[in-house]
Amino acid sequence: MEKIVKYIENEEKRYLSELIDFLKIPSISSLPEHNGDMLKCAEWLSDNIKAAGFEDVQIISTAGHPLVYAEWLGAGKGAATVLVYGHYDVKPVDPLDLWDSPPFEPAIRDGKIYGRGTSDDKGQAFCHVKGLEALFRQNGKLPVNVKLLIEGEEECGGENLVKFINENAEMLKCDTVLISDTEWFDDGLPSICYSLRGIAFVEVHITGPNRDVHSGTYGGAIDNPINILCWMISKLKDQYGRITIPGFYDDVLELTDKERIGFKELPFNIKAYKHGLGINFVHGEMGYTTLERSTARPSLDVNGIKGGFQGGGAKTIIPSQASAKISMRLVPNQRADDITEKITAYLKTIAPQTVSIRVEPLHGGNPVLVSQDSKGVRAAINAIKKAFGKEPAFTREGGSIPIVELFSEVLNARVVLMALGLPDDNIHSPNEKLDLKNFYGGIKASAHFFEEMGKL
Amino acid sequence: MEKIVKYIENEEKRYLSELIDFLKIPSISSLPEHNGDMLKCAEWLSDNIKAAGFEDVQIISTAGHPLVYAEWLGAGKGAATVLVYGHYDVKPVDPLDLWDSPPFEPAIRDGKIYGRGTSDDKGQAFCHVKGLEALFRQNGKLPVNVKLLIEGEEECGGENLVKFINENAEMLKCDTVLISDTEWFDDGLPSICYSLRGIAFVEVHITGPNRDVHSGTYGGAIDNPINILCWMISKLKDQYGRITIPGFYDDVLELTDKERIGFKELPFNIKAYKHGLGINFVHGEMGYTTLERSTARPSLDVNGIKGGFQGGGAKTIIPSQASAKISMRLVPNQRADDITEKITAYLKTIAPQTVSIRVEPLHGGNPVLVSQDSKGVRAAINAIKKAFGKEPAFTREGGSIPIVELFSEVLNARVVLMALGLPDDNIHSPNEKLDLKNFYGGIKASAHFFEEMGKL
Repeated sequence: MEKIVKYIENEEKRYLSELIDFLKIPSISSLPEHNGDMLKCAEWLSDNIKAAGFEDVQIISTAGHPLVYAEWLGAGKGAATVLVYGHYDVKPVDPLDLWDSPPFEPAIRDGKIYGRGTSDDKGQAFCHVKGLEALFRQNGKLPVNVKLLIEGEEECGGENLVKFINENAEMLKCDTVLISDTEWFDDGLPSICYSLRGIAFVEVHITGPNRDVHSGTYGGAIDNPINILCWMISKLKDQYGRITIPGFYDDVLELTDKERIGFKELPFNIKAYKHGLGINFVHGEMGYTTLERSTARPSLDVNGIKGGFQGGGAKTIIPSQASAKISMRLVPNQRADDITEKITAYLKTIAPQTVSIRVEPLHGGNPVLVSQDSKGVRAAINAIKKAFGKEPAFTREGGSIPIVELFSEVLNARVVLMALGLPDDNIHSPNEKLDLKNFYGGIKASAHFFEEMGKL
Repeated sequence: MEKIVKYIENEEKRYLSELIDFLKIPSISSLPEHNGDMLKCAEWLSDNIKAAGFEDVQIISTAGHPLVYAEWLGAGKGAATVLVYGHYDVKPVDPLDLWDSPPFEPAIRDGKIYGRGTSDDKGQAFCHVKGLEALFRQNGKLPVNVKLLIEGEEECGGENLVKFINENAEMLKCDTVLISDTEWFDDGLPSICYSLRGIAFVEVHITGPNRDVHSGTYGGAIDNPINILCWMISKLKDQYGRITIPGFYDDVLELTDKERIGFKELPFNIKAYKHGLGINFVHGEMGYTTLERSTARPSLDVNGIKGGFQGGGAKTIIPSQASAKISMRLVPNQRADDITEKITAYLKTIAPQTVSIRVEPLHGGNPVLVSQDSKGVRAAINAIKKAFGKEPAFTREGGSIPIVELFSEVLNARVVLMALGLPDDNIHSPNEKLDLKNFYGGIKASAHFFEEMGKL
């Protein structure tokens, strides 16, 4: 591997120049006016992957934006197969005036490259293209079989990949899925995420009188759907921060002592956390720390509420309707369908007969728990140690990455979330950046990862 | 009075024809494109009042729409002075397609006249102009001193009348204020309203994190301003429908046994009430009937609530802000200022330190309780009996008529709310109407009222 590392170090200038070309294509998947750029970006990436050493590269059309797919199966049937997943599409860039340099004219400042997609996910995905290229160029082959799947609809909620994976499970068959689309716990602290929360999202609609009525005429004599909705929402948690939906915690996997010690060892600064949010006090489920609450314990939040008169000034009505969007973050081994059923039943049970209630399921995704000693995870630990000189921490994330569950369930593969970004990368925000030490280190980490996979 | 009644009966055709001319002028006060119609309407009314026998009629300019003011003080200093208040402006007419005949082309169907303003308040106010005209024409004078004040901003919340009354209290000085801008309890059941509820209206703003944050990343670890707001709203009433703000009931005047018996005798159909609202159950303060709850007991309603994402589908945020408009209907002897202070203090007390709270007072008006045996009320009872052959019921209304409090407080006058409309007059709605028997009877009732006032 020494010559490979040396090779990578010698090629940094070229890597950066290629990354800049990749970033310059404004591949915003959610804006139809960029449909041409999406195709252009897929073509650029396809060419780059071909040049890296993959002979078999395809641009696969979907009902939405195309996928880029490549495979090299030269390691043979006895060897492991790794599927690398990433995405070449990016989020919109507004508000544009908050960018210090134009989002699609990548600029280097202070050892960091700024631009849309630098971290999420062009930069991170490109590390693997270049890591694999280094292996091809130095060894003429790869240590394991590799499939590359880089999609164009991650940022716009496209359902085409789900369909594609389900219909092409045989082609995508693999032992390990490697994803670099997350972030380290802290600068200088690489991390491998081993659990993601799922989500169950419903909208509850409460109807009282058949029209908005005058609160002078009817106030006090009939129930008001907003008051009722608020009361029902207040009944979803108790004063200890516990969710009161019957059976809600039935399938929650408790944190192990080892996990809790791991959480405690992470350099989490509660003062900075509160300062960053502008709040004086955190609050959550009694008996758990802030990090545990936000990543390893389930939660319930009203994401939106509306009802009655919302304009300026006063309008004295009892509205006919009120509604709230309520989402619950789920942890292993809760299931989105089950929790959706439970909250629906509970809301219907507590709703008084003075109103009518409708609970609409909006969407759901199951939580993910990745084995901490799969081959892939062990390879990632070693790769990170070799590339960055640091032992990675094991972390959990509070959000969801639906694709991870899909890979686990449909391909029955072990997923490895090898983060290459940093928490201050401003993903989805102005001045998105990638630290160049993470970019160059990420290319090395990628090469090491495949090398380690070949050894295990 | 016999010849006056006879005269009124002979003039019905002319009264109707004049009313139609009055109604044809589209005096919508809230729409600037009708400013010219407002002036035209004031001029028409002024001319009509002059023709009725008032020599001293003025169109008084305000910062908004003009007032029409007339007075006849020929009864002398020893006689009573009655101020008649009404309004010549009307509400907008949309949705226009729900009208069976055009709103400003009055049409007679089945003994009723249809059109905007027929009941609210052109028709009712015009009864007094014609009642006074009959007295002038038959007697050459009026039994008491009369001041007529007919304004043009009742339907658009204009503040100009408040200013005018405050600045002209000496000119408007009177013993009794007569207002016909309300409705009978039922067809065939005339009523005199002796109490109106007041209002205290606030908006509460809750702020959590300094920006909308991702509910995956933060959910469970920090308080959500919507959840907190809902919980706070749920703490404003208990399970018996009682408002839980400390001191809220301190000044509430309990219903007397006589009043409660009166309420019970009113022909209130709870089944029709629920059917009309499309609800299966009423709900309110334990120990009181629906009529009592909606007119003689205070209430609390959220008139509007907003926070977070309100568009279609799912967006997983913990919002930075949530707010609710909350109004309380007040009964004698609660005071709007006091209740506003009490709810503000209570909300601030219960708000957790995880959020910040701001309570904004929106507006307030005090409740009104009119003496049931003032001269004016006795005159109205007799007038109603003579004109309609029925004893009027004493009722309370759940809404507010701010002008009533103003007359009580600034002019120190006794207000009489002699309703001439019916509960199904569709005021503020399409197909507003006035029953012609109420119109002609109202003219007689007006003449009788002044006659009775002269006798007392």
